[in-house]
Amino acid sequence: MKEYILLIDTSDAKGLVYNVSKVLFANNLNIEQNSEYVEPDSKKFFMRTIISGEIHKDLLLKELREILPKESQITLHERLKKDIVILATKESHVLGDLLIRYIDGELNANIKAVIGNHEYLRDLVEKFNIPFYCISAEDMERETHEELVIKQIKEFNPDLIVLAKYMRILTPGFVKHFPKKVLNIHHSFLPAFIGANPYKQAHHRGVKIIGATAHYVTDDLDEGPIIFQDIVRVDHNYTWQDMRRAGRNVEKVVLSNALELLLEEKVFVHGNKTVIL
Amino acid sequence: MKEYILLIDTSDAKGLVYNVSKVLFANNLNIEQNSEYVEPDSKKFFMRTIISGEIHKDLLLKELREILPKESQITLHERLKKDIVILATKESHVLGDLLIRYIDGELNANIKAVIGNHEYLRDLVEKFNIPFYCISAEDMERETHEELVIKQIKEFNPDLIVLAKYMRILTPGFVKHFPKKVLNIHHSFLPAFIGANPYKQAHHRGVKIIGATAHYVTDDLDEGPIIFQDIVRVDHNYTWQDMRRAGRNVEKVVLSNALELLLEEKVFVHGNKTVIL
Amino acid sequence: MKEYILLIDTSDAKGLVYNVSKVLFANNLNIEQNSEYVEPDSKKFFMRTIISGEIHKDLLLKELREILPKESQITLHERLKKDIVILATKESHVLGDLLIRYIDGELNANIKAVIGNHEYLRDLVEKFNIPFYCISAEDMERETHEELVIKQIKEFNPDLIVLAKYMRILTPGFVKHFPKKVLNIHHSFLPAFIGANPYKQAHHRGVKIIGATAHYVTDDLDEGPIIFQDIVRVDHNYTWQDMRRAGRNVEKVVLSNALELLLEEKVFVHGNKTVIL
Amino acid sequence: MKEYILLIDTSDAKGLVYNVSKVLFANNLNIEQNSEYVEPDSKKFFMRTIISGEIHKDLLLKELREILPKESQITLHERLKKDIVILATKESHVLGDLLIRYIDGELNANIKAVIGNHEYLRDLVEKFNIPFYCISAEDMERETHEELVIKQIKEFNPDLIVLAKYMRILTPGFVKHFPKKVLNIHHSFLPAFIGANPYKQAHHRGVKIIGATAHYVTDDLDEGPIIFQDIVRVDHNYTWQDMRRAGRNVEKVVLSNALELLLEEKVFVHGNKTVIL
Repeated sequence: MKEYILLIDTSDAKGLVYNVSKVLFANNLNIEQNSEYVEPDSKKFFMRTIISGEIHKDLLLKELREILPKESQITLHERLKKDIVILATKESHVLGDLLIRYIDGELNANIKAVIGNHEYLRDLVEKFNIPFYCISAEDMERETHEELVIKQIKEFNPDLIVLAKYMRILTPGFVKHFPKKVLNIHHSFLPAFIGANPYKQAHHRGVKIIGATAHYVTDDLDEGPIIFQDIVRVDHNYTWQDMRRAGRNVEKVVLSNALELLLEEKVFVHGNKTVIL
Repeated sequence: MKEYILLIDTSDAKGLVYNVSKVLFANNLNIEQNSEYVEPDSKKFFMRTIISGEIHKDLLLKELREILPKESQITLHERLKKDIVILATKESHVLGDLLIRYIDGELNANIKAVIGNHEYLRDLVEKFNIPFYCISAEDMERETHEELVIKQIKEFNPDLIVLAKYMRILTPGFVKHFPKKVLNIHHSFLPAFIGANPYKQAHHRGVKIIGATAHYVTDDLDEGPIIFQDIVRVDHNYTWQDMRRAGRNVEKVVLSNALELLLEEKVFVHGNKTVIL
Repeated sequence: MKEYILLIDTSDAKGLVYNVSKVLFANNLNIEQNSEYVEPDSKKFFMRTIISGEIHKDLLLKELREILPKESQITLHERLKKDIVILATKESHVLGDLLIRYIDGELNANIKAVIGNHEYLRDLVEKFNIPFYCISAEDMERETHEELVIKQIKEFNPDLIVLAKYMRILTPGFVKHFPKKVLNIHHSFLPAFIGANPYKQAHHRGVKIIGATAHYVTDDLDEGPIIFQDIVRVDHNYTWQDMRRAGRNVEKVVLSNALELLLEEKVFVHGNKTVIL
Repeated sequence: MKEYILLIDTSDAKGLVYNVSKVLFANNLNIEQNSEYVEPDSKKFFMRTIISGEIHKDLLLKELREILPKESQITLHERLKKDIVILATKESHVLGDLLIRYIDGELNANIKAVIGNHEYLRDLVEKFNIPFYCISAEDMERETHEELVIKQIKEFNPDLIVLAKYMRILTPGFVKHFPKKVLNIHHSFLPAFIGANPYKQAHHRGVKIIGATAHYVTDDLDEGPIIFQDIVRVDHNYTWQDMRRAGRNVEKVVLSNALELLLEEKVFVHGNKTVIL
């Protein structure tokens, strides 16, 4: 039997769960999984439900809209493998990890294409019979280059865009084309280091922990809603290059955890935060 | 407004969420938090709901029983601080941590009493103005001693009994008096070591990780449903005493995390496992 | 047989280990533990050696000075329990943890006194038969108050001063009296939050990890050399108060780990970093 | 200037460090890194030193043997990339991770060949231009098959053999050919589960943590000296297949950490334990 993912993002009101479950029950649908969360300050209500059965999508959505507050965001998809496009630059640690998971059957997604702004990663990607597009930014204005990238991405109409160490700053224009669809990974530290070569700074500061943060991309590149974070311990024996290597290892683990959450549609955005159900 | 915790443990059936939320809605109650889980193999359904409003407890329970499968376990309590009794022997690391949390206002429970089978911990406990009962097991049969302990515990009618390094083996008879009410903490390792002085064994084996496991006590002392686990890294520099010290640190953290889950009534037992909502 | 801790902090030079071990050998001393580290960029040499045997301290120091570069910092102590003084304000989670370790015999130090700037913690401290001094800062200039605190500390001539959530900013003058002797604990986050109520900020930002950093106090309160760091996971269910509670738990673990390193004299300061041998 | 790794494994004696450093000094060699450890129970002495300069290997070894106890194990190599051979069966998560690190320049080793007992992994391996040898065990006695594998490995004379989920039990005869040269990775749990499908057992037991252990292979396949361990948290939402996926992720991280330690020759074997310097 087919399974569907129903996501509701709305204002809390008395009887929401009752009303939604009533509609599902009346449509003869099974609830396979269900989680709700009410954010206590804003009284926002989030609900993720896996349902199974025969659905008439338009009809069901109509009935749900009738019993939910007007401004509700409701999405309803069949629970299928999602299509993703990966953007990368030169480093292969995150991309390579995704490719191995992909051929291993552990990545619950179709990698439609990898787009790079250099040729470096073509060889690796093509080994796995995945199309690689190099869109060089050389001698080009940022906006012009980005337009080309956006156009290439749109050909694949992906559910998600994964920045696997894509080292170009994206403009707000880019994000507007793919709202809540772009996942990024970046290093992070206690305390934070801003500017060139954060690993050198972290080394100079003598940190004992190095982290990575996976987040949605919003207009502010490294400041979007955080999806997953993890850390690894380092000590005084680590050169800054060792720290960077340790950082890369945690980056690939963090990105892959975050991507799994997105592929299962478990992540809601609430302000600049995420709610993970 | 008063808050209540409603717990339902039953077999899955179509419309369960609908029916429960219908009853709550009809009774003019707010759902503050709600989590459900259906265990896919056994099709068991677990639901934890925080509701607020004016309730007529008996009436509400009656209505819920009418719409739920016959064998359902339903509990409904006001959300209040729980009463606990602590059992301990000689070591103070877990007990002391609970006492500091208690006076700090971070333990969401009333410690009604501490019962020891030695006098060692009386001083510490009485510093905090908590009654301490020493029930020595000397020159006594296991069952006779246990009867005395059971009797003492029952005087306080606690919601939970916390074994904070209580070094006596409990009989099945004990557990029968307090089903799903006894929390224990014990060390654990990769791989596991059985028998006397597991830290010496772990040291001899050269483990790189030491853990602790908090679990419900069932008839089989260290084998009840696991509630929380954590680990700490060790290396070849650790003597077995160092390992024991590291183990104690993780024991107190693990016990306190598990206890917090129990005090919030987030833990369901399913076979020999826990479901934490 | 008595044990001694020898610490050498100098510039690297050919034959350093050879020359030091030659002196120790000639003095008929056993090396029980030995670690060295050469920082590759600065070519600084750090050595920590536990020696046993009969030593003539002045003579041995003299011989070591002869074979080591002029600017070398050499310290040589008998390996004994250290004396500490604790400063605290209102919160008891870190202080309480130290007190429980202390009576448990797990803290390898003598707590000579606790100094508070409020009366809040007197009860707790005196339960453990440790002198508590309240030095209120009310109606007093910062420097005047600090002078009183310094005077009180000096009466105990401690090896280490532990700031167990002491919520007063220390002046450079304070640190000058106790160089490399003051240990502090503070919360830390990915990313960092500066200003009032960092937990509210962290909550608003939706972090998934909360950390704590133990460091030496230098002129810049929260920026001294880092000794130990750790983290704990949080999620969207955490209110900012829950995050603060989680933060407190990790603070006490981190401080106690850092203190253990200091009590064993394993921590060298190198610029604004630590080398831990 | 060339660098060398000197490893000494012997019984502790007065003046060992002095004597070794004297020889190195007399030979005009620089000590770049140096760590020693004396195991307190057995009084075994372990030393790992990185030296730089012009060495006459045979002469230096002769001089070291003269000043060290007779039964000392001394090894002295130039610090070079090591050659490794990988054995695998069907799963690609560990192997794939090694291959990506390899082409990424993050694996400090030459992968000379991959040997499988099935054809499954040929495609993946050959994508990376690494020779793949399938030695099927079908219709063959264990010893006969193993002889063929040993013969194939020996053609490459590797420094290390990495079992990257090689699902054949090795005989003591195999290990005798490659003492202290075989690295294995296996899942591990709190508590331990023995027998078929440990993930099903762990799921049934309701564990909250899943681990992996990297160890030297000795006669007893999963019981050799432990090199590295790590864990990952799981909860009741995990099916046993989810647990297996989580386990695989931690396996690849653990194996790669252990391999890095071996490639840097940081691991000494002491009884059934490791000392990591």
